[in-house]
Order: sequence, then C-alpha cells, then structure tokens
Amino acid sequence: MTKKVGILGATGYTGLELIKILLNHPNMEISYLGSVSNKGKKVSEVFPFLEKYSVGKLQFEGYENIPTDVELLFLALPHEVSMELAPQLLEKGYKVVDLSGAYRFKNLQDYKTFYGFEHKYPQILEIAVYGLPEIYREKIKKASLVANPGCYPTATLLALYPILAKAKDLIVDETIIVHALSGVSGAGRGLKQHFHFPEMTNNMFTYKVVNHRHIPEMEFVANSLTNKGLKIRFTPTVVPIDRGMISTVYIKMKKTDLRELYREVYQRKFFIQILNQPPKSKEVANTNFCFIYPVYDERTSTAVIVSAIDNLVKGASGQAVQNANLMLGLEETAGLDTLIPSLI
Amino acid sequence: MTKKVGILGATGYTGLELIKILLNHPNMEISYLGSVSNKGKKVSEVFPFLEKYSVGKLQFEGYENIPTDVELLFLALPHEVSMELAPQLLEKGYKVVDLSGAYRFKNLQDYKTFYGFEHKYPQILEIAVYGLPEIYREKIKKASLVANPGCYPTATLLALYPILAKAKDLIVDETIIVHALSGVSGAGRGLKQHFHFPEMTNNMFTYKVVNHRHIPEMEFVANSLTNKGLKIRFTPTVVPIDRGMISTVYIKMKKTDLRELYREVYQRKFFIQILNQPPKSKEVANTNFCFIYPVYDERTSTAVIVSAIDNLVKGASGQAVQNANLMLGLEETAGLDTLIPSLI
Amino acid sequence: MTKKVGILGATGYTGLELIKILLNHPNMEISYLGSVSNKGKKVSEVFPFLEKYSVGKLQFEGYENIPTDVELLFLALPHEVSMELAPQLLEKGYKVVDLSGAYRFKNLQDYKTFYGFEHKYPQILEIAVYGLPEIYREKIKKASLVANPGCYPTATLLALYPILAKAKDLIVDETIIVHALSGVSGAGRGLKQHFHFPEMTNNMFTYKVVNHRHIPEMEFVANSLTNKGLKIRFTPTVVPIDRGMISTVYIKMKKTDLRELYREVYQRKFFIQILNQPPKSKEVANTNFCFIYPVYDERTSTAVIVSAIDNLVKGASGQAVQNANLMLGLEETAGLDTLIPSLI
Amino acid sequence: MTKKVGILGATGYTGLELIKILLNHPNMEISYLGSVSNKGKKVSEVFPFLEKYSVGKLQFEGYENIPTDVELLFLALPHEVSMELAPQLLEKGYKVVDLSGAYRFKNLQDYKTFYGFEHKYPQILEIAVYGLPEIYREKIKKASLVANPGCYPTATLLALYPILAKAKDLIVDETIIVHALSGVSGAGRGLKQHFHFPEMTNNMFTYKVVNHRHIPEMEFVANSLTNKGLKIRFTPTVVPIDRGMISTVYIKMKKTDLRELYREVYQRKFFIQILNQPPKSKEVANTNFCFIYPVYDERTSTAVIVSAIDNLVKGASGQAVQNANLMLGLEETAGLDTLIPSLI
Repeated sequence: MTKKVGILGATGYTGLELIKILLNHPNMEISYLGSVSNKGKKVSEVFPFLEKYSVGKLQFEGYENIPTDVELLFLALPHEVSMELAPQLLEKGYKVVDLSGAYRFKNLQDYKTFYGFEHKYPQILEIAVYGLPEIYREKIKKASLVANPGCYPTATLLALYPILAKAKDLIVDETIIVHALSGVSGAGRGLKQHFHFPEMTNNMFTYKVVNHRHIPEMEFVANSLTNKGLKIRFTPTVVPIDRGMISTVYIKMKKTDLRELYREVYQRKFFIQILNQPPKSKEVANTNFCFIYPVYDERTSTAVIVSAIDNLVKGASGQAVQNANLMLGLEETAGLDTLIPSLI
Repeated sequence: MTKKVGILGATGYTGLELIKILLNHPNMEISYLGSVSNKGKKVSEVFPFLEKYSVGKLQFEGYENIPTDVELLFLALPHEVSMELAPQLLEKGYKVVDLSGAYRFKNLQDYKTFYGFEHKYPQILEIAVYGLPEIYREKIKKASLVANPGCYPTATLLALYPILAKAKDLIVDETIIVHALSGVSGAGRGLKQHFHFPEMTNNMFTYKVVNHRHIPEMEFVANSLTNKGLKIRFTPTVVPIDRGMISTVYIKMKKTDLRELYREVYQRKFFIQILNQPPKSKEVANTNFCFIYPVYDERTSTAVIVSAIDNLVKGASGQAVQNANLMLGLEETAGLDTLIPSLI
Repeated sequence: MTKKVGILGATGYTGLELIKILLNHPNMEISYLGSVSNKGKKVSEVFPFLEKYSVGKLQFEGYENIPTDVELLFLALPHEVSMELAPQLLEKGYKVVDLSGAYRFKNLQDYKTFYGFEHKYPQILEIAVYGLPEIYREKIKKASLVANPGCYPTATLLALYPILAKAKDLIVDETIIVHALSGVSGAGRGLKQHFHFPEMTNNMFTYKVVNHRHIPEMEFVANSLTNKGLKIRFTPTVVPIDRGMISTVYIKMKKTDLRELYREVYQRKFFIQILNQPPKSKEVANTNFCFIYPVYDERTSTAVIVSAIDNLVKGASGQAVQNANLMLGLEETAGLDTLIPSLI
Repeated sequence: MTKKVGILGATGYTGLELIKILLNHPNMEISYLGSVSNKGKKVSEVFPFLEKYSVGKLQFEGYENIPTDVELLFLALPHEVSMELAPQLLEKGYKVVDLSGAYRFKNLQDYKTFYGFEHKYPQILEIAVYGLPEIYREKIKKASLVANPGCYPTATLLALYPILAKAKDLIVDETIIVHALSGVSGAGRGLKQHFHFPEMTNNMFTYKVVNHRHIPEMEFVANSLTNKGLKIRFTPTVVPIDRGMISTVYIKMKKTDLRELYREVYQRKFFIQILNQPPKSKEVANTNFCFIYPVYDERTSTAVIVSAIDNLVKGASGQAVQNANLMLGLEETAGLDTLIPSLI
C-alpha cells in the first residue's frame, strides 16, 4: 500500500529532512515537491547530492496544480503562508500536516501577541488537531489537518505529560520553569550574522527570554490536560550543534516515584525511552526518539525532567511523518524506526 | 613593584591559564611552579609552545622547598590535596589563593555530603575568605587564605547578588532555580570517554542533576547575604565549547526595575557589564568579564537573570589573579584588563 | 533470503556502525556479537540507546563458540588479533571481512616496516582479496577472505583509479602526492590527550608525516594496476569533525579530459558520484558514497582530484557490508542505498 | 613614545582584531576609526562588548578628514577600495599598511587574471614593499606603503623561505605543491549559505582548486628569492575552525638537514618556532607566531614542511602591527609578544 504525498516548501531544512525520510518510507512516495523560489528547477540542481535518487529527477513546482492523486501534503512554509494555504488545500480534499505555527493553538489573541498576525480562519483552527502522537494519537488518526508541534514544545510536553496526565494534583506551583537548549538548525536556513560560522562556533547564547512563540502551544496543551491555569516560564539557549535539543523542566510538586510513573505512561510508546541517566543529544540525533530522564529533588521539592530530541526529526519532520502515518492508516513507526540511535 | 608568586599544580588547564595571565602581569613574576607529575622537567618540555618565554626555562618542582621570597601561592590542586597543604603553607607565611573547593564554605557536614571527605581543618576554614571580589572585596584585601569560587558559583552569584543584597524582601519563593551551561574545560584535563572528541562534538548533556558540589557555596553566600533560608536548585549542562559558561537564574519575586538595580549595584565594578540583550559566551571568552542580562517576566512574576563568563578566567584563574591583586595591595584589574572581549 | 552474520569487536566505532547498518539490512541478520571486554553483558547495557531494538537483547560473547549457521564474520579487531583469528575462522568455514590492516597487501617486509609485526600467515595473505568493490568486484564475489581497505586508501584509490586504469601512460612523475584530512573517529574510541574535547575542538594537526601505515596498501594497488613503480607521498591531517574525510591527490601528467574519463569509468558505480565542484564532507557523512571532483591544472601540468567519504562508512563499515553483499551473492547496494546524502 | 594610528574598515574581522591588538600596544594609540557602513555610530554601539574600553567611546568616521597627527593607517578594505585610497593617503603623508591584495605583487597582468580588475597605479605598486618581516625586514623599515601578505602566503612562504634562500640549488622540480587548511574567519564576516553554522559545522570542503588569488604573491616572492621560475600548485580547504591555518608544502629536492637549516635561518626571528613534531593550529591561535615542522621524506625525495599560524593574527592583523612597528621605528615585537601560545 503506497500513498502519494507532497511537500510544499521543500528546500529548507525541514523540507529536505522530509525528503530524506520519505525516500526510505515503505508506504509513502513523494510525488510532488513545491518550492516557489526554485520553481522549474530539478531537485538535483538544487541538491546535487540527491542525483543518484529518483527524487533528484523531480522538478520543483509552485503551490497550485497539485495532482489529485496526492493524498497528503506536508507544509514546511512560513506561518502566514500556511495559514492561508491550509484551508484551500483541505477544501480540495488533501490531508494536511502543517509544520508551521499557524494552527497549533486555539486562542486567537495569542496569534497576535506571540506571532504578530491576525488569524483569519478560526473555524479551521477548530478542526485542527495538535500533532503530538504520544498524547493525541486517536484524534490524529481521524484528523484532516494536523498542526505539527514546534520543536521546543515537543521536547517539553513529552517531558511534562506523565505528570500532567497522572499526577497533576501533586503540583504545588502553577509556574513551570522550562529551560531548553537547541542546535542552530532550529532557526532554519536563513542567514544571520550571529549564525555565521566563525561567530557561532564555540559560542552559545540565550534569546527571546520572555514571550517566545512556543509558549502558547505549551500552555494550551498543559491546561487542556489539567485545567489548572499552568504557566510556562520558557527560556531557549542556542548552542553550537547542528541538530539536537535538550529541554529541562522544573515542577514544584509533592514527592512521587517519577521513574515508575514515566515508565508506565510511556511503556507502549516506541519513540519514548526512559533512561536511568540524563540523555545525550547526540544519541537521538537523526532519529525520531525522545529520551527522557525524570528525577525528584527532595532538597527543593522539585521534579526535574530532562528530555532530548533531534529538533529536525522528532521536533519537526520525523514527527510530521509519524502524524501522516496515523492519518493515512499506516503503521505509526513506518519509515521512522529505521532511524537508529547511536554514539557518534 | 613586582611580587614573586608560585603555582602548585601548574599543568592542568587552570594552572596553564595562570601561567599565561601572569606572564603578562605588570606586577607579578612567576618564580615557582610545582607539579608532582612533571617534577624535574622544564616547562618547555611539557608545554613546548612556551619555549620563547622566560617561563619555558623554569623547572617544575615538587611542593616542598618553596623559596621564601615567594609572597603568594596559587593552588590548582585536587580538593583534598589543597585541604592538607593550605594550612602548612599559611604557617610558613605564604598567602594562598586556593582554586579547589576545600575552603569555600563553612558547614563541615556539607564537605561530607557533597565532596565525600571529612574536613580536618575547621579552624582554617574559619579564616578562609570566599574570593568573589565584587562581593567581598574588603575582606579579601586582608585575607591570608582566599578560597577561589567555583565557576558555576561565580556566574550564578554575580547574577544573583544585586537582588540578594538590595531586593531580598521582594523574593517570594525560597527556591531559586539555576540552570547553567558549561564548556568542557570546566571538567579539567582528565580523559573521559564522553569527552572524547568524536563523542562530545555536536553533543550536549546534563549531568549531576541533584546535589552538585557547587551547591553549598552558592547557598552559603546566598544565605549570608539574606538570612532567608534560600535554596539553590542547580542543574549543569555541558555543551561542545572549549571555554565559556552561561548561568540562568530564576527567582520568583515582586516586580522591580531590575535593569536599574543591576546597573547601580555594579556601576563601579570593572569586570561586570550589564547588557540590554542576553550575552554571548564567546564575547567574554579569554577575558575576566562577567556579562549580565537581567529581565523581569511579568507573565510569571519571575526575575530571569542571564550571566556569562569564561569558566577558566573569571570562573577560575582570572578571578584568582584578581584576588591575588587585592591580597597583595595591587590594582584590582592589573594583568586582567588587557584581556579584551571580542566577537570571535 | 536472510543471511546470518556476526561481528567480532563490536563495541568500537566501526563495530557499532556495522550494527546500525545491519539492523536495516534487508538480507542480513546479526546473530552473533563478540567483544572480549564486554563478554557476558547485554548489548543494551553497553549501548543503552539500542534498548528498543532486537539487537539490544543480544549478549556479547567471546570469540570462540560461534554458531555454525553464521555465514560471514566481520572482524573489527586490532591488526594482530585479526591476523591470528582470520585463518582459524576460514578453516571453520566462515567467510571473513577483516576491517584491520592484517591482510591488505602482500609484501611481508612492509608489515614489519609499517606495522611493526611479523606476518605469520603468508599463505593466507595470498588468498586475501583487497575489498575495494569499485576495482575488484569480481574477485570479491569469489573471495572467502576480504581485507577491507583503510579509510585513507579508500578515498585515495577511488580518486586515483580512473587515471591508473585508463590513463597511466600520461603520468610523467612516479611520485603521487596525497594530502588527506580526516575526522577524529578515524582514530578510534581509545582516549588520547590530544583528542580530549577542549584540546581538539577548534584545532587541527598533521601527524605521521612520513611512513603512515596506509602507504603500502595504496602503493600495492597503484602498482598492481600500472606496473609503473609509483610512489605515494602521503600526509594525513586530523580536523575537528566527528566523521568525514577528504583526500586530495596530485599527479603530474599530460593533459586529458579528466571529467569525461571519470564519468565514464564510474558510470555504473552506484556509490561514486562525479561532481562539477569540490565535495563537502558533510554531504557524504553517514552514507556509503564517495564524491569525486577531478580537475586538470594547466599552469602546473598537474591533475588534482578531490574525493570525499565518511571514514566510518565507505571508509570502513559501509564498505565492509558492500563487500559482504558481494561475497554472499546479494545486491551490492543492499542496506546501503538507504543512507542518503544530505546538507546537514 | 606613543604613535597615533588609524584603521579604515574597522568593523570586519581583521579590523576588530587590529583594535584588540592596538588597545594593548605600549606605543600606539588608536585615534581614528573609519567605517563607511557605521559612520557616525559609537564603537560601543557596534561592538557593545567594548564598552569598558576607551575605544568604545570613539565614533566611526568616513575615510576623509583624517587628523593630520595620525602617522600610520591600516587599511582593512576591499582590494579595489584600497587600490584607490592608498595613493591619496600616501600623498597626504600617512604611512600605510594595506591588508588587501591591491599592492602585493608587481605583475599588472596578474591583477586582471587573478583579481579581475585593472591596476591603475603601477608607479605606486613599484614603491610598495611586501610585508613579510622575516624576509623583508630592512625594506619594510624604510617603506611608506607596506602590502600586508595574505594569510595563505604568510604560512606558505615562511614554510618555504629557508629552502628558497639557502638551498635553492637542491630543488629538482620547479612545481611546489601547497595544500593549506584554513579556519572560516579567513573568508571574512560576509554571510554565505555554506558558512551558515548548521552547514559548516562538522564539515569541510576544498574550494578554488585552480587559480586562487594568493598564487601570484607566492610565486612573486619565490622567484624573487630564487630566480628559478618556480610554480606554486595551491589548494585551499576550509575546515570548521574559527581561526587557524596549516599550510603543507611539498618540494622535490635533494637531501639536506632541514631541521638544522630551518633553525639556523630562523634563530633570531621571535615569531618563528621550529618544532620537532607537527604543530597544532590551536597552539598559535590568538598569537603572532608561526610554528614550523620541516621533514625530509627519503622514500620520495621530497621535503615536506608544515607551518601553522592564526590567519587573523600572523596571517593579517598581527603581522600588520609587526610591519607598523618596523615602519615607525618601534620594537618589532611590541604589542605582539603578549599574545602567548597555549593549549586551549
């Protein structure tokens, strides 16, 4: 059973990552690649290293005239472009996995506050499902539009979920502190002075210390699960790594056996592994895994949970494929369990 | 006015950093280098790149028979070796700057809990002064034994100090969360599998999530300043950088103008700079500066302060020289203001 | 058709890389893992990140008592251990791919000169086939013992082969200069001071400027192909990369159309791609590809050919699987064409 | 004795490096900073990390109205801008150290071939002195215009000089092969896709395999010294390092004692150190040193010389200061011997 899929915005890091994953997918076939900036070029002109693969012979198209036998489209586009395109594509009958932030949460005001634009399609927002399969698997299966989570929210919510779902009554402070570290690919392919190699190598810095864009989706999920008015106090730091992310969450709470709680909640989730020591980001690089280390600090009555993902895979394109698998009735791990953790 | 000084444990990273700084110091002269493992060798045999400098012709000695005209000794030694040596050296009349953890806090039990050894010299502990010059300048001037702070405590306490000193009544939660990122040199020159280049490059990981050794000195200072029973909830993450450190502290507190508070408290401190944006670790690499960015997050009523240092300079050897300057009656910035911040 | 295979020396970088490749191989199954240092431990104890995979449940065994239904063994062992084990394993009927240098060339004296040991099995040396499939495909198919080439020789000989095979009469100087750059994983997992992360990051250095161990196999192949008494003047430099290798070869020769020659010779070789611009090592990282850029410099009458591989894949474990595919009658690209080139 | 100097083009990497070096120079004072793009801004607005230093209060000016008490100007400008400005500045009586390629060699045709522009000032070219102090010290002392060498030529010519000067009759092939590796800062601050951190980290690639711009100055010096019609076959590779350069040169020649030759030729040159093992680029990073390792390979009758510099210091701004010291009658090492080699 092979499903035809397409990618709009195929030449950024997440688009290229989707191409690579889908080339090895046993049940999906890339039959459409959209790129406004490279329209008309062959894929192997833009990415010469793909010359030996069938996809290299494809041509980048615009975003119109998508063949009707394509079942699902991945949107790896700017937020506002996605916001506009998604409703049109849904109307034409395509299933959509949107990797932007355009449909991740419901509160219209937050789009203005955190993203700086007015959301024009509240009725589409209503039907969008947040694509974190470890939490919303059943809803995703039935969805036509899945909003693929941001990388920081993926790492963070997977670190929080067992407590939010099964131990929320033990929480004693509504502010959850989250400090997350990200590789530079999380910021995309666009050139910036501070990401110029001589300046970024051997360097690190924190940015957007207040009001980062990923806050509303984290709070939306956290409060959907608990109804407790939780707040996420979020800090991101960029480190000199190409791909990789570690999120550390701090929850003031009463003591409980976190290790057991986490193992139980995640026991049937293939892509989650609970560790006895903190994860290394490189172990999960180039994989769809999330490695989690939960610990309770008695001195300060604080649960500290450390999670690691690859920001481009579980934090973006891998999770998008995981969502697409569910939406298309395929095995959830198809095309993803071949991405094996390693040491280097 | 030139003061003769010596270094015991001169072949680790902090020892070598001391050599480099002292070679350019206008008022200090290295006249003694101790290294048990390299005893009898010339410095230029161990560090051939120092051949062109006078120090290259020196010979590493043991820790006995230190010339009497040496005024001050830097100890860059393991904790327990320092604990034993410091009292003997003081008795012989040397001033001592100890870069280990052996004399940093007063609580004897904490040495057992956090360091795993019994402290044998409580009376020497009493006279030791904690060497954070921005806080304890006057005491350091008169001290014979200065315990040079750990790198994490330096970055963290400098980020906390203005609030602890001037706004402690605004603090509403006694637990202060601290998440600090360190370059790998902070772990020293000793070989470890996870620091082998192919495994550490492009990688990061958190370690010692509970009960890190630097907690007691941070809590000791915090509570000396406030008497409020503050607790430090501390997490360190190692990142693929040779030298550099960023500490982020989270204090639940009532609103105040942090920028103004920080500028005022630190206005006469040469090595502290208050920024309008978060610091980059590379800006302060190879310098004795601490760059600080304080911000108040109204959404969560939390003060977030980000500080950056070079873990080997302000976090170790540079601060040791700053302390020695004070102890020897020299200009506080001597030999250190020539280490200029940069971009790459 | 599934073939059972085993790995001896499974816990180094090349052993682990073999495990990862074989886990995704459509026609091979790992049924035996040997490791003297980890004998008796489960794979997931040594590599916890493999817990979710079947191989994680295997146990490391010694090098005796290998099941008889294993058809082929990969030896990822020290040179002298391989030299001793290979003959015994062949006698028991296993096919062997040896990743060490023990059987790569025929001249007994060179083992003494370059490796420092006396080769004890000249008759086994005679039947060993040098495992560079782009040159010796047909011989490899029939071999019972294949000596998998070193990483430097792989990159270098693939850069040289078209000239050696088809244009040797144009060569005007018998000394071929080769300057190759390698990522640090090429030196293995063993700890060394100069590979300690703080010293190796942002650093590079040349080593073994004369008489590197990979010279005899390069000269052996070069002269087998040309019978011209060619000499390889070889320099390796280690650069701060985990995996990756670029070899540049300089041949004084008469002018010819190198681009056309290379495209023609390699037109049916899946893993070789001829580029119009110099390759980036990252494009071929984690793949079995060799990217080659040949150019003729008229100013100096010199052919300059630049080739790039991943030292652990095409330079070691990937090529070992490519050889095993041929030896076992499988598709040459099986398990390897799923390793797709990329940008990051 | 303090000399007033200025920098035109002060906001690139070499301009900033000049600022840092000059701030610590005992006999020079920065009294003029020119930057067209930042004209009118205070230095500390562009480089906030310089706020604590006097230079931070300076304002960037244009390139006109330079005070007359400035004695010497450093030009860190694009080639063609330097070509135009240098004659005007000389006429006004300033001494000039030009860090561009505009005045490095004499052959007018080579400017067209290698730089793509027509040189308009052949008479100024005639008076320009090539600023490699280890070779042209006496000429530099008397020069009004010094053309500061490129980074590759500096490392390469210092590696070649003893043979060219004292053993040229032993050379048996007129083509000298040079393979040099450079950190990314050598390419400047301008943004390029392949230098975007996620793509450049853990990566390396060769570029400009034929006809690199630094060839004419290398051949000009080589032939000035030998009159032998030598040709430089030059290949540069960029590696993931911020600053650092290693050049390896290959000269076919008769045997001689290279170690002794090099030690003798360079015995009084402070910034040259002859090593018994190949240099590490990090040892000379942030210093004005050139470390050299010469070896004769008897197998191939080839002299192999490896040299290491910091491309921004000895390869640019440090050497510019060394030249300025000579031109202004100061100690050659002033402001530069405080830049001490190290390990990390």
